[in-house]
Amino acid sequence: MAPPREALTFPFSKATLIDPYLPSTNPTVTPFTSKPFVTLTYATSLDSSISLSPGIQTALSGPQSKAMTHYLRSKHDAILIGCGTAIADDPSLNCRIEGVGGYGGEGLQGQPRPVVLDPKVRWDADEWSKVVELAKDGRGKAPWVLVLEDYVRLVRREYRNALEGVGGKFVAMSSTTKDGWMDWNDILSVLAREGINSVMIEGGGTVITDLLSPRWLCLVDSVIVTIAPTWLGKESVIVIPDERRGEKGYKIPVGRLKEVHWVPLGEDVVLCGRPNAT
Amino acid sequence: MAPPREALTFPFSKATLIDPYLPSTNPTVTPFTSKPFVTLTYATSLDSSISLSPGIQTALSGPQSKAMTHYLRSKHDAILIGCGTAIADDPSLNCRIEGVGGYGGEGLQGQPRPVVLDPKVRWDADEWSKVVELAKDGRGKAPWVLVLEDYVRLVRREYRNALEGVGGKFVAMSSTTKDGWMDWNDILSVLAREGINSVMIEGGGTVITDLLSPRWLCLVDSVIVTIAPTWLGKESVIVIPDERRGEKGYKIPVGRLKEVHWVPLGEDVVLCGRPNAT
Repeated sequence: MAPPREALTFPFSKATLIDPYLPSTNPTVTPFTSKPFVTLTYATSLDSSISLSPGIQTALSGPQSKAMTHYLRSKHDAILIGCGTAIADDPSLNCRIEGVGGYGGEGLQGQPRPVVLDPKVRWDADEWSKVVELAKDGRGKAPWVLVLEDYVRLVRREYRNALEGVGGKFVAMSSTTKDGWMDWNDILSVLAREGINSVMIEGGGTVITDLLSPRWLCLVDSVIVTIAPTWLGKESVIVIPDERRGEKGYKIPVGRLKEVHWVPLGEDVVLCGRPNAT
Repeated sequence: MAPPREALTFPFSKATLIDPYLPSTNPTVTPFTSKPFVTLTYATSLDSSISLSPGIQTALSGPQSKAMTHYLRSKHDAILIGCGTAIADDPSLNCRIEGVGGYGGEGLQGQPRPVVLDPKVRWDADEWSKVVELAKDGRGKAPWVLVLEDYVRLVRREYRNALEGVGGKFVAMSSTTKDGWMDWNDILSVLAREGINSVMIEGGGTVITDLLSPRWLCLVDSVIVTIAPTWLGKESVIVIPDERRGEKGYKIPVGRLKEVHWVPLGEDVVLCGRPNAT
């Protein structure tokens, strides 16, 4: 099967710089652990915004950055986003790197599983949602949607049919954080139980900010941030994690990446690092 | 005169990458214009903070970044900061690159003029302020302090004596912005009139945020931002410029750098670019 015209390629010279931060080449990753390898990735402005306004897709980074995102997707078992992004962007959530399934490759080989966090059933996919259409066309896996168990009954029939019709499913989650939200330990356990050994967490602002907080950053194995040389200004969708206090109550940095590598990519730079390296 | 032990060196290999963004090698700079060449420079976290808390100096970037700052200072006629930084940091505001005056060089050769914006006389330097002591020792130029003309009478005698005793001075500024603040056109005109052909603007957060706003960014010739691979979290000193609206009232990016170059420097990256390149 010849790759379709929209297939992307990511240059080998850049890939070799980023590969050490990805699950497949990371020697510490062993399959069947209780937690998948977690890669957190996002594109940001110089003033730490990912979008001009909530619900607006802002073209921050250049075309090479898009190819990199798809390359990263090809290296993970699953990609995860929050429902806000699913609603705002109607995202494809597949991998269009030349050679993966649907883009020159066999079956769904190299296609990641799309996972959407939709705790209170705000998303409402239907048969025209891109992720559903791509699954129908054999160019992406069917999505899994994680919903809090108390809210599963709110899933409309059309939403359920659209997802289950292409092989997707809803996974009921018990709420365990104080504020009744999902616990990242739970989310990652469920993914591990479902055979997911690596997950790339892509957005949006709420999910990224949450995962960068002092409480959850310890769960992240690799961080890959694309920085574009622009400022979006006030009232944008800003990624600033909760503050962290040290032993005596003094404010300390939330986290610092180690084993850092900066990869210039077009007009942007890609920062690769590990939050938890020793 | 042998350079003292605290003299710094900045590697030639890095300097050649940054030089095209500096006034002395920029072909568009002609002396005796109405505005000096303006370089805006700051060090930031991934979440666009320059400090953990107001008034706290946070070691964000590595030692190579410090050497770069001093190298940049050696390439400018003046360095400018706001009074908040002067009060919080008691900064030296001189250049310690090996070979400049006081650090192996003759006289005050290569030393920039420290300029402090102190519109309402909040700073209160005295003879023990570092910048005054260094001027006394022949290791830095005496500072100029820009004060709004209505506030000049509030300058205490000790403050005036300390500055003028080492050859510094107060410059009275007329307020021309709506909110009674200084106008950057005025500030730069005054500097040009005083023979300053290039100025490096270093901080703090208020000054940087102001200069990045849609209104003033057009006055900046070069931007040099050091980014450290860390997040400082909420309640830090954040640099986010005012928003900008396009023709139809839609939010648009405040500014985008052109002719961008990313220079990895230790664990950090240095972004060089021009806001106004055509």
